[in-house]
Amino acid sequence: MTEMTNAPFSRVHIVGTGLVGTSIGLALSHQGVRVTLEDSSPSSLALALDYGAGHQRGNSAEAPESDPELVIVATPPDVVAKVVLEQLSAFPQAMVIDVASVKQQIAVEVASHLEDASRYVGTHPMAGRERGGAVSARSDLFTARPWVICESDTAHSSLIEEFVTSLGGIAIQMNAHDHDEAVALVSHLPQVVASLAAARLSGATESTLALAGAGLRDVTRIAASDPGLWVQILAANAPAIVDQLRAVREDMDTVIQALDALEKPGSRKVIADALQAGVSGVSALPGKHGVSTSYASLVVVIDDTPGQLARLLTQLGDWAVNLEDLRLEHSPGAQVGFVDLTLAHDVVSEVENKLVASGWRIAGENA
Amino acid sequence: MTEMTNAPFSRVHIVGTGLVGTSIGLALSHQGVRVTLEDSSPSSLALALDYGAGHQRGNSAEAPESDPELVIVATPPDVVAKVVLEQLSAFPQAMVIDVASVKQQIAVEVASHLEDASRYVGTHPMAGRERGGAVSARSDLFTARPWVICESDTAHSSLIEEFVTSLGGIAIQMNAHDHDEAVALVSHLPQVVASLAAARLSGATESTLALAGAGLRDVTRIAASDPGLWVQILAANAPAIVDQLRAVREDMDTVIQALDALEKPGSRKVIADALQAGVSGVSALPGKHGVSTSYASLVVVIDDTPGQLARLLTQLGDWAVNLEDLRLEHSPGAQVGFVDLTLAHDVVSEVENKLVASGWRIAGENA
Repeated sequence: MTEMTNAPFSRVHIVGTGLVGTSIGLALSHQGVRVTLEDSSPSSLALALDYGAGHQRGNSAEAPESDPELVIVATPPDVVAKVVLEQLSAFPQAMVIDVASVKQQIAVEVASHLEDASRYVGTHPMAGRERGGAVSARSDLFTARPWVICESDTAHSSLIEEFVTSLGGIAIQMNAHDHDEAVALVSHLPQVVASLAAARLSGATESTLALAGAGLRDVTRIAASDPGLWVQILAANAPAIVDQLRAVREDMDTVIQALDALEKPGSRKVIADALQAGVSGVSALPGKHGVSTSYASLVVVIDDTPGQLARLLTQLGDWAVNLEDLRLEHSPGAQVGFVDLTLAHDVVSEVENKLVASGWRIAGENA
Repeated sequence: MTEMTNAPFSRVHIVGTGLVGTSIGLALSHQGVRVTLEDSSPSSLALALDYGAGHQRGNSAEAPESDPELVIVATPPDVVAKVVLEQLSAFPQAMVIDVASVKQQIAVEVASHLEDASRYVGTHPMAGRERGGAVSARSDLFTARPWVICESDTAHSSLIEEFVTSLGGIAIQMNAHDHDEAVALVSHLPQVVASLAAARLSGATESTLALAGAGLRDVTRIAASDPGLWVQILAANAPAIVDQLRAVREDMDTVIQALDALEKPGSRKVIADALQAGVSGVSALPGKHGVSTSYASLVVVIDDTPGQLARLLTQLGDWAVNLEDLRLEHSPGAQVGFVDLTLAHDVVSEVENKLVASGWRIAGENA
């Protein structure tokens, strides 16, 4: 289990007990942090309290020494700036962060109301799920996930970085503009594309839908996300998203034109190029989370028994080989299974040689 | 493993040892069916033979009593019709089926060359993967997957239905036109959409890509599929796919216009409606196919060291736990990783209890 560093704040107030607010509350409460919770919806608040994500803040003014050192605004995006300003004013000693998906608009709005907004730091944990609400909360939601911290003065920034790390997140410093451009590509574009593809399924016949496979399910999974929340996100980042959508639409037109005129020389190449660009795009994605390096795959053939896999991994462990990823291609009906190892590029041939020397069989080799 | 009924054919010849051909060969071989394999690529054929998917057909003419009763054409789509005709002619007593993703064009081409094409039946197992080739083959690839059988005369059709069922597939009778319209929606549209979204990732900065999460990975996963294969599929079903793409492009234009004019009354409603249509579309999908309902996932949190994973698997091996699948969620920047185990549903809670009792931590538990 993770050894978490101690949280740098001992009293934290969370406004908004949806998925992210409740998950933070759970994680902090387990670390012994005194967490108070607030939500405009009594039923959402009651649920988060029930889960043990924190305590209710007393209605009457509490003693100033019980004031939070950190306030986390985890409300729907549309009201974040307003709530941040309220909290900065209510707790003049506290730092205030938000966790909204779009950062520039909020930063501008907060700054426009305050001469010194340095107690506010915009952040964004990249840890959504297609199902929101306290009911989906989990204390390890942020483990190993990127958590963007927008530029601020060094003292505040390093405190928040410590806080993010204490929740298991990977702190990434980025300015609000770059953040918004980045999420337009890696989060908002896929959301819109998934929704538009999924929308075509309404009204399809039962026999058509019976043919749906894993590919369609993957592409459309996030289309189940809450439209109310997403309208706010898309509206807050409209120009960056429109740029991405226009680019996709242009590529789509190119593919449509080529499919419409297959008899023209070069049409198939146009389609192949579009598909190849997709292959390149996917391969640009870094390993599971985080660092991009060059990785290569090595597929080992094993007897289809659990003991074999353990033996293989023990051996790799003895050699201190670091696995970037591992997939088991299990075949109940076959005499063999495949273990697809993803390794740093520069160790692949060494590992392959060692495995072969130790009697392992590499797939694709006609041993 | 699935209890398979007896295969209705005792000698089967498979032309094409890619993912589907090799998987069928594996499944049939395990049932004791005499399978012969053929592929224009000697290395692909050697791999399939190695895996035990069947035997090589003798170069010299074999005795007629060893002729196949069924020939399965599992070549790339572009040459399917030609190979089907060759096989019908080479084995005048055999039934010939193909497994290509688009059915009308092939049916028309075969029928145009023969007075009586009744020995040919077009079929399509909905069991692709983004990685093809014999190396990805598995004998249970078709378990609980729809397998379309195009209309043909009753005797042939019911034999093929029996055959599909013997491989664990769900036989669905459908005419070629309806099939092609259906896959344009549930298979070809998501492929193009995934490719176009993934294409945007090329050239993105490393810090942008570091923010990629599960949503983006899901939407773009199938974009890694083989462009050469997909050009053939899209070209064979162009009119139906163009219809789908045009509809998506129209919806995309609507969203772009609304995002471009957010100040206009009603703009947010237009965006919300588009997102809501996606929610409705996803909910129209029937329960999962392919992922057999008898499996469940258990995510174990481990220290991010190779030794930990080996220790976990040794323990599971000691308990004789059979893994259906295993995924490592490795996080270079974090101290922990997640091991996503897929287990038979009826052992999950027992395994979970044993793991917890042995000191392992299950993800998502608020302990």
